[in-house]
Amino acid sequence: MIRVLLVHDACLVRSVLAEWLRREPDLRVDDTPWHNARGRVRADRPDVCAADLDSSGTHGVPPLADLRPPDTGNPPPRLVVLAGANRPGLLKRAAEAGALGYVDKEGAPERLVEAIRRAAEGERFVDDSLGFGFLRAAEIPLTRRELSVLELAAGGASIAEIAGSLHLSNGTVRNYMAAITRKTGARNRVDAIRISQGEGWL
Amino acid sequence: MIRVLLVHDACLVRSVLAEWLRREPDLRVDDTPWHNARGRVRADRPDVCAADLDSSGTHGVPPLADLRPPDTGNPPPRLVVLAGANRPGLLKRAAEAGALGYVDKEGAPERLVEAIRRAAEGERFVDDSLGFGFLRAAEIPLTRRELSVLELAAGGASIAEIAGSLHLSNGTVRNYMAAITRKTGARNRVDAIRISQGEGWL
Repeated sequence: MIRVLLVHDACLVRSVLAEWLRREPDLRVDDTPWHNARGRVRADRPDVCAADLDSSGTHGVPPLADLRPPDTGNPPPRLVVLAGANRPGLLKRAAEAGALGYVDKEGAPERLVEAIRRAAEGERFVDDSLGFGFLRAAEIPLTRRELSVLELAAGGASIAEIAGSLHLSNGTVRNYMAAITRKTGARNRVDAIRISQGEGWL
Repeated sequence: MIRVLLVHDACLVRSVLAEWLRREPDLRVDDTPWHNARGRVRADRPDVCAADLDSSGTHGVPPLADLRPPDTGNPPPRLVVLAGANRPGLLKRAAEAGALGYVDKEGAPERLVEAIRRAAEGERFVDDSLGFGFLRAAEIPLTRRELSVLELAAGGASIAEIAGSLHLSNGTVRNYMAAITRKTGARNRVDAIRISQGEGWL
Protein backbone atom coordinates (compact mmCIF):
# COMPACT_ATOMS: atom_id res chain seq x y z
CA MET A 1 0.00 0.00 0.00
CA ILE A 2 1.42 3.39 -1.01
CA ARG A 3 0.38 6.32 1.19
CA VAL A 4 -0.04 9.35 -1.06
CA LEU A 5 -0.54 12.97 -0.06
CA LEU A 6 -2.03 14.96 -2.95
CA VAL A 7 -1.15 18.68 -2.72
CA HIS A 8 -3.27 21.05 -4.82
CA ASP A 9 -4.81 24.40 -3.95
CA ALA A 10 -8.27 24.26 -5.51
CA CYS A 11 -10.56 22.10 -3.37
CA LEU A 12 -12.92 21.13 -6.19
CA VAL A 13 -10.20 19.81 -8.49
CA ARG A 14 -8.26 18.26 -5.62
CA SER A 15 -11.32 16.29 -4.43
CA VAL A 16 -12.05 14.90 -7.88
CA LEU A 17 -8.40 14.04 -8.52
CA ALA A 18 -8.06 12.34 -5.10
CA GLU A 19 -11.23 10.33 -5.72
CA TRP A 20 -9.90 9.31 -9.10
CA LEU A 21 -6.57 8.15 -7.59
CA ARG A 22 -8.40 6.20 -4.87
CA ARG A 23 -9.77 3.80 -7.48
CA GLU A 24 -6.29 2.33 -7.62
CA PRO A 25 -6.21 -0.56 -5.11
CA ASP A 26 -2.58 0.04 -4.10
CA LEU A 27 -2.93 3.75 -3.27
CA ARG A 28 -4.18 5.27 -0.03
CA VAL A 29 -4.77 8.93 -0.82
CA ASP A 30 -5.11 11.97 1.42
CA ASP A 31 -5.20 15.52 0.11
CA THR A 32 -4.36 19.02 1.26
CA PRO A 33 -3.89 22.56 -0.01
CA TRP A 34 -0.33 23.92 -0.05
CA HIS A 35 -0.66 25.98 3.12
CA ASN A 36 -1.38 22.88 5.24
CA ALA A 37 1.07 20.59 3.47
CA ARG A 38 3.92 20.84 6.00
CA GLY A 39 1.70 19.84 8.91
CA ARG A 40 0.11 17.00 6.98
CA VAL A 41 3.50 15.58 5.94
CA ARG A 42 4.60 15.53 9.58
CA ALA A 43 1.33 14.02 10.81
CA ASP A 44 0.56 11.50 8.07
CA ARG A 45 4.09 10.52 6.99
CA PRO A 46 3.11 9.77 3.39
CA ASP A 47 5.34 7.64 1.17
CA VAL A 48 4.79 9.98 -1.77
CA CYS A 49 3.74 13.61 -2.06
CA ALA A 50 2.14 14.37 -5.44
CA ALA A 51 2.08 18.14 -5.74
CA ASP A 52 0.77 20.60 -8.30
CA LEU A 53 3.50 23.18 -8.92
CA ASP A 54 0.92 25.95 -9.33
CA SER A 55 -0.19 27.33 -6.01
CA SER A 56 -2.92 29.91 -5.67
CA GLY A 57 -1.49 31.50 -2.54
CA THR A 58 1.63 32.75 -4.23
CA HIS A 59 1.85 33.74 -7.87
CA GLY A 60 5.33 32.32 -7.87
CA VAL A 61 7.13 29.32 -6.50
CA PRO A 62 5.26 26.95 -4.15
CA PRO A 63 6.92 26.02 -0.81
CA LEU A 64 8.43 22.75 -2.01
CA ALA A 65 10.68 22.48 1.03
CA ASP A 66 7.55 22.04 3.17
CA LEU A 67 6.98 18.65 1.55
CA ARG A 68 10.32 17.25 2.68
CA PRO A 69 10.99 18.68 6.14
CA PRO A 70 14.55 17.73 7.14
CA ASP A 71 13.93 17.16 10.85
CA THR A 72 11.24 14.50 11.03
CA GLY A 73 13.63 11.72 12.03
CA ASN A 74 12.39 9.39 9.30
CA PRO A 75 12.94 9.37 5.54
CA PRO A 76 11.10 12.24 3.87
CA PRO A 77 8.35 11.42 1.34
CA ARG A 78 9.26 10.88 -2.28
CA LEU A 79 8.16 13.84 -4.36
CA VAL A 80 6.16 13.78 -7.62
CA VAL A 81 5.27 17.09 -9.26
CA LEU A 82 2.60 18.07 -11.75
CA ALA A 83 4.26 20.54 -14.08
CA GLY A 84 4.18 22.23 -17.45
CA ALA A 85 7.04 22.60 -19.94
CA ASN A 86 6.23 26.31 -20.26
CA ARG A 87 7.52 27.22 -16.79
CA PRO A 88 11.06 25.82 -16.69
CA GLY A 89 11.91 27.74 -13.51
CA LEU A 90 9.45 25.61 -11.56
CA LEU A 91 10.97 22.41 -12.97
CA LYS A 92 14.35 23.61 -11.79
CA ARG A 93 13.03 24.33 -8.29
CA ALA A 94 11.42 20.89 -8.16
CA ALA A 95 14.70 19.27 -9.19
CA GLU A 96 16.54 21.25 -6.50
CA ALA A 97 13.95 20.04 -3.97
CA GLY A 98 14.81 16.45 -4.90
CA ALA A 99 11.66 15.53 -6.84
CA LEU A 100 11.77 12.04 -8.41
CA GLY A 101 8.65 12.25 -10.57
CA TYR A 102 7.77 14.92 -13.19
CA VAL A 103 4.31 14.55 -14.73
CA ASP A 104 3.20 16.82 -17.58
CA LYS A 105 -0.17 18.48 -16.92
CA GLU A 106 -0.79 18.25 -20.63
CA GLY A 107 -0.59 14.45 -20.52
CA ALA A 108 -2.98 11.65 -19.59
CA PRO A 109 -3.88 11.24 -15.92
CA GLU A 110 -2.71 7.62 -15.91
CA ARG A 111 0.83 9.01 -16.07
CA LEU A 112 0.37 10.40 -12.57
CA VAL A 113 -0.47 6.96 -11.20
CA GLU A 114 2.60 5.50 -12.88
CA ALA A 115 4.82 8.27 -11.54
CA ILE A 116 3.54 7.70 -7.99
CA ARG A 117 4.26 3.98 -8.18
CA ARG A 118 7.74 4.55 -9.61
CA ALA A 119 8.59 7.21 -7.04
CA ALA A 120 7.41 4.92 -4.23
CA GLU A 121 10.09 2.47 -5.43
CA GLY A 122 12.65 5.24 -5.38
CA GLU A 123 12.80 5.43 -9.16
CA ARG A 124 12.83 8.50 -11.35
CA PHE A 125 9.90 9.24 -13.69
CA VAL A 126 10.04 12.07 -16.24
CA ASP A 127 7.41 12.70 -18.91
CA ASP A 128 9.15 12.99 -22.30
CA SER A 129 7.13 16.06 -23.12
CA LEU A 130 8.80 17.94 -20.26
CA GLY A 131 12.23 17.44 -21.80
CA PHE A 132 12.28 20.79 -23.53
CA GLY A 133 11.28 22.45 -20.27
CA PHE A 134 14.28 20.89 -18.53
CA LEU A 135 16.55 22.05 -21.32
CA ARG A 136 15.32 25.61 -20.83
CA ALA A 137 15.54 25.21 -17.04
CA ALA A 138 19.28 24.77 -17.44
CA GLU A 139 19.40 28.11 -19.19
CA ILE A 140 18.00 30.51 -16.59
CA PRO A 141 20.16 33.54 -17.29
CA LEU A 142 19.94 35.16 -13.84
CA THR A 143 22.16 34.61 -10.82
CA ARG A 144 20.64 33.89 -7.41
CA ARG A 145 21.37 37.46 -6.36
CA GLU A 146 19.67 38.86 -9.43
CA LEU A 147 16.66 36.61 -8.79
CA SER A 148 16.45 37.95 -5.20
CA VAL A 149 16.50 41.54 -6.45
CA LEU A 150 13.85 40.81 -9.08
CA GLU A 151 11.66 38.91 -6.62
CA LEU A 152 11.53 41.96 -4.33
CA ALA A 153 10.83 44.23 -7.29
CA ALA A 154 7.99 41.93 -8.40
CA GLY A 155 6.55 42.27 -4.90
CA GLY A 156 6.28 46.00 -5.45
CA ALA A 157 9.40 47.15 -3.59
CA SER A 158 11.15 50.34 -4.73
CA ILE A 159 14.88 50.52 -5.49
CA ALA A 160 15.49 51.99 -2.01
CA GLU A 161 13.43 49.26 -0.33
CA ILE A 162 15.28 46.54 -2.22
CA ALA A 163 18.59 48.13 -1.24
CA GLY A 164 17.49 48.20 2.40
CA SER A 165 16.34 44.58 2.39
CA LEU A 166 19.51 43.21 0.81
CA HIS A 167 21.99 45.58 2.51
CA LEU A 168 23.11 47.07 -0.80
CA SER A 169 23.46 50.64 -2.05
CA ASN A 170 20.80 52.10 -4.35
CA GLY A 171 23.39 52.28 -7.13
CA THR A 172 24.19 48.58 -6.81
CA VAL A 173 20.51 47.69 -7.02
CA ARG A 174 20.20 49.85 -10.13
CA ASN A 175 23.17 48.00 -11.64
CA TYR A 176 21.53 44.65 -10.87
CA MET A 177 18.30 45.87 -12.46
CA ALA A 178 20.12 46.96 -15.61
CA ALA A 179 21.87 43.56 -15.83
CA ILE A 180 18.54 41.75 -15.30
CA THR A 181 16.80 43.76 -17.99
CA ARG A 182 19.64 43.10 -20.43
CA LYS A 183 19.96 39.38 -19.65
CA THR A 184 16.24 38.66 -19.91
CA GLY A 185 15.96 40.58 -23.17
CA ALA A 186 13.35 42.81 -21.55
CA ARG A 187 12.39 46.34 -22.50
CA ASN A 188 12.30 47.56 -18.91
CA ARG A 189 11.87 46.47 -15.30
CA VAL A 190 8.17 45.62 -15.62
CA ASP A 191 8.90 43.59 -18.72
CA ALA A 192 11.72 41.72 -16.95
CA ILE A 193 9.29 40.76 -14.17
CA ARG A 194 6.66 39.67 -16.69
CA ILE A 195 9.14 37.53 -18.62
CA SER A 196 10.60 35.97 -15.49
CA GLN A 197 7.22 35.12 -14.00
CA GLY A 198 6.05 33.71 -17.30
CA GLU A 199 9.08 31.41 -17.40
CA GLY A 200 8.52 30.35 -13.80
CA TRP A 201 11.85 31.78 -12.60
CA LEU A 202 10.05 33.86 -9.96
CA MET B 1 -29.78 14.99 -21.80
CA ILE B 2 -27.63 18.09 -21.18
CA ARG B 3 -24.74 18.57 -23.60
CA VAL B 4 -21.84 20.03 -21.62
CA LEU B 5 -18.56 21.44 -22.92
CA LEU B 6 -15.94 21.52 -20.16
CA VAL B 7 -13.29 24.21 -20.76
CA HIS B 8 -10.06 23.91 -18.78
CA ASP B 9 -6.46 24.31 -19.89
CA ALA B 10 -4.65 21.48 -18.13
CA CYS B 11 -5.35 18.22 -19.96
CA LEU B 12 -4.72 15.99 -16.93
CA VAL B 13 -7.18 17.78 -14.66
CA ARG B 14 -9.67 18.31 -17.48
CA SER B 15 -9.75 14.58 -18.31
CA VAL B 16 -10.34 13.56 -14.72
CA LEU B 17 -13.01 16.21 -14.18
CA ALA B 18 -14.79 15.27 -17.43
CA GLU B 19 -14.73 11.60 -16.47
CA TRP B 20 -16.15 12.49 -13.08
CA LEU B 21 -18.99 14.50 -14.67
CA ARG B 22 -19.77 11.66 -17.10
CA ARG B 23 -20.94 9.50 -14.21
CA GLU B 24 -24.08 11.65 -14.12
CA PRO B 25 -26.66 9.94 -16.34
CA ASP B 26 -28.16 13.23 -17.59
CA LEU B 27 -24.87 14.83 -18.75
CA ARG B 28 -23.08 14.27 -22.05
CA VAL B 29 -19.65 15.79 -21.57
CA ASP B 30 -17.02 16.92 -24.05
CA ASP B 31 -13.92 18.86 -23.08
CA THR B 32 -11.48 21.32 -24.59
CA PRO B 33 -8.68 23.72 -23.67
CA TRP B 34 -9.47 27.45 -23.94
CA HIS B 35 -7.70 27.96 -27.27
CA ASN B 36 -10.03 25.51 -29.05
CA ALA B 37 -13.20 26.53 -27.21
CA ARG B 38 -14.63 28.83 -29.87
CA GLY B 39 -14.45 26.16 -32.58
CA ARG B 40 -15.89 23.50 -30.31
CA VAL B 41 -18.85 25.67 -29.33
CA ARG B 42 -19.66 26.23 -32.99
CA ALA B 43 -19.24 22.57 -33.92
CA ASP B 44 -20.81 20.82 -30.91
CA ARG B 45 -23.49 23.38 -29.93
CA PRO B 46 -23.41 22.49 -26.23
CA ASP B 47 -26.29 23.45 -23.94
CA VAL B 48 -23.87 24.50 -21.22
CA CYS B 49 -20.22 25.58 -21.21
CA ALA B 50 -18.55 24.94 -17.84
CA ALA B 51 -15.32 26.92 -17.88
CA ASP B 52 -12.42 27.39 -15.48
CA LEU B 53 -11.68 31.13 -15.27
CA ASP B 54 -7.95 30.46 -14.96
CA SER B 55 -6.34 29.95 -18.31
CA SER B 56 -2.72 29.01 -18.77
CA GLY B 57 -2.31 30.74 -22.12
CA THR B 58 -2.85 34.20 -20.74
CA HIS B 59 -1.94 35.27 -17.22
CA GLY B 60 -5.01 37.40 -17.22
CA VAL B 61 -8.57 37.19 -18.41
CA PRO B 62 -9.69 34.15 -20.43
CA PRO B 63 -11.53 34.73 -23.77
CA LEU B 64 -15.04 34.39 -22.34
CA ALA B 65 -16.64 35.86 -25.45
CA ASP B 66 -15.43 32.76 -27.39
CA LEU B 67 -17.91 30.64 -25.44
CA ARG B 68 -20.94 32.60 -26.60
CA PRO B 69 -20.28 33.62 -30.22
CA PRO B 70 -23.04 36.00 -31.29
CA ASP B 71 -23.34 34.85 -34.89
CA THR B 72 -24.13 31.15 -34.71
CA GLY B 73 -27.80 31.61 -35.54
CA ASN B 74 -29.00 29.55 -32.58
CA PRO B 75 -29.14 30.36 -28.87
CA PRO B 76 -25.64 30.50 -27.35
CA PRO B 77 -24.74 27.97 -24.64
CA ARG B 78 -25.47 28.80 -21.04
CA LEU B 79 -22.28 29.63 -19.18
CA VAL B 80 -21.10 28.22 -15.82
CA VAL B 81 -17.74 29.39 -14.44
CA LEU B 82 -15.35 27.89 -11.92
CA ALA B 83 -14.05 30.83 -9.92
CA GLY B 84 -12.39 31.98 -6.71
CA ALA B 85 -13.51 34.79 -4.43
CA ASN B 86 -9.93 36.12 -4.42
CA ARG B 87 -10.04 37.35 -8.02
CA PRO B 88 -13.11 39.60 -8.17
CA GLY B 89 -12.10 41.04 -11.53
CA LEU B 90 -12.68 37.65 -13.15
CA LEU B 91 -16.13 37.37 -11.54
CA LYS B 92 -16.98 40.74 -13.01
CA ARG B 93 -15.83 39.68 -16.48
CA ALA B 94 -17.91 36.49 -16.22
CA ALA B 95 -20.98 38.49 -15.22
CA GLU B 96 -20.41 40.84 -18.17
CA ALA B 97 -20.18 37.77 -20.43
CA GLY B 98 -23.61 36.68 -19.22
CA ALA B 99 -22.62 33.71 -17.04
CA LEU B 100 -25.54 32.10 -15.16
CA GLY B 101 -23.58 29.80 -12.83
CA TYR B 102 -20.71 30.71 -10.47
CA VAL B 103 -19.09 27.74 -8.72
CA ASP B 104 -16.44 28.29 -6.03
CA LYS B 105 -13.26 26.29 -6.68
CA GLU B 106 -12.94 25.98 -2.93
CA GLY B 107 -16.25 24.13 -2.72
CA ALA B 108 -17.37 20.53 -3.23
CA PRO B 109 -17.41 19.19 -6.81
CA GLU B 110 -21.10 18.25 -6.53
CA ARG B 111 -21.83 21.99 -6.71
CA LEU B 112 -20.58 22.02 -10.27
CA VAL B 113 -23.10 19.37 -11.28
CA GLU B 114 -25.89 21.32 -9.63
CA ALA B 115 -24.82 24.54 -11.34
CA ILE B 116 -24.78 22.83 -14.74
CA ARG B 117 -28.31 21.46 -14.25
CA ARG B 118 -29.63 24.82 -13.08
CA ALA B 119 -27.97 26.73 -15.91
CA ALA B 120 -29.43 24.25 -18.44
CA GLU B 121 -32.86 25.31 -17.14
CA GLY B 122 -31.91 28.96 -17.60
CA GLU B 123 -31.62 29.53 -13.85
CA ARG B 124 -28.94 31.40 -11.97
CA PHE B 125 -26.62 29.51 -9.56
CA VAL B 126 -24.19 31.38 -7.30
CA ASP B 127 -22.11 29.78 -4.54
CA ASP B 128 -22.65 31.71 -1.29
CA SER B 129 -18.91 31.69 -0.64
CA LEU B 130 -18.36 33.85 -3.73
CA GLY B 131 -20.52 36.63 -2.27
CA PHE B 132 -17.60 38.60 -0.91
CA GLY B 133 -15.86 38.34 -4.26
CA PHE B 134 -18.91 39.86 -5.98
CA LEU B 135 -18.98 42.64 -3.42
CA ARG B 136 -15.36 43.46 -4.22
CA ALA B 137 -16.04 43.10 -7.96
CA ALA B 138 -18.41 46.04 -7.67
CA GLU B 139 -15.57 48.07 -6.22
CA ILE B 140 -12.92 47.94 -8.94
CA PRO B 141 -11.47 51.43 -8.62
CA LEU B 142 -10.11 51.77 -12.16
CA THR B 143 -11.86 53.08 -15.23
CA ARG B 144 -11.79 51.16 -18.51
CA ARG B 145 -9.21 53.59 -19.87
CA GLU B 146 -6.99 53.15 -16.82
CA LEU B 147 -7.30 49.37 -17.16
CA SER B 148 -6.22 49.62 -20.82
CA VAL B 149 -3.17 51.67 -19.83
CA LEU B 150 -2.25 49.26 -17.04
CA GLU B 151 -2.76 46.21 -19.24
CA LEU B 152 -0.24 47.54 -21.75
CA ALA B 153 2.17 48.40 -18.92
CA ALA B 154 1.79 44.87 -17.53
CA GLY B 155 2.70 43.55 -20.98
CA GLY B 156 6.03 45.35 -20.68
CA ALA B 157 5.25 48.43 -22.76
CA SER B 158 7.04 51.69 -21.94
CA ILE B 159 5.24 55.00 -21.38
CA ALA B 160 6.04 56.02 -24.97
CA GLU B 161 4.77 52.70 -26.35
CA ILE B 162 1.54 52.97 -24.36
CA ALA B 163 1.08 56.53 -25.60
CA GLY B 164 1.60 55.36 -29.19
CA SER B 165 -0.86 52.46 -28.86
CA LEU B 166 -3.64 54.54 -27.34
CA HIS B 167 -3.01 57.76 -29.32
CA LEU B 168 -2.24 59.75 -26.17
CA SER B 169 0.64 62.02 -25.20
CA ASN B 170 3.39 60.72 -22.90
CA GLY B 171 2.24 63.22 -20.27
CA THR B 172 -1.33 61.93 -20.35
CA VAL B 173 -0.09 58.35 -19.91
CA ARG B 174 2.03 59.51 -16.95
CA ASN B 175 -1.07 61.14 -15.45
CA TYR B 176 -3.05 57.91 -15.89
CA MET B 177 -0.24 55.93 -14.25
CA ALA B 178 -0.17 58.32 -11.30
CA ALA B 179 -3.95 58.02 -10.87
CA ILE B 180 -3.75 54.21 -11.13
CA THR B 181 -1.00 54.02 -8.51
CA ARG B 182 -2.97 56.26 -6.14
CA LYS B 183 -6.32 54.51 -6.67
CA THR B 184 -4.93 51.01 -6.19
CA GLY B 185 -3.03 52.04 -3.06
CA ALA B 186 0.18 50.89 -4.74
CA ARG B 187 3.72 52.04 -4.03
CA ASN B 188 4.67 52.32 -7.68
CA ARG B 189 3.84 51.09 -11.16
CA VAL B 190 5.11 47.56 -10.60
CA ASP B 191 3.12 47.35 -7.39
CA ALA B 192 -0.05 48.57 -9.14
CA ILE B 193 0.35 45.80 -11.74
CA ARG B 194 0.94 43.21 -9.02
CA ILE B 195 -2.13 44.31 -7.05
CA SER B 196 -4.35 44.46 -10.12
CA GLN B 197 -3.30 41.05 -11.41
CA GLY B 198 -3.78 39.58 -7.94
CA GLU B 199 -7.33 40.91 -7.83
CA GLY B 200 -8.07 39.59 -11.31
CA TRP B 201 -8.65 43.06 -12.77
CA LEU B 202 -6.06 42.43 -15.48
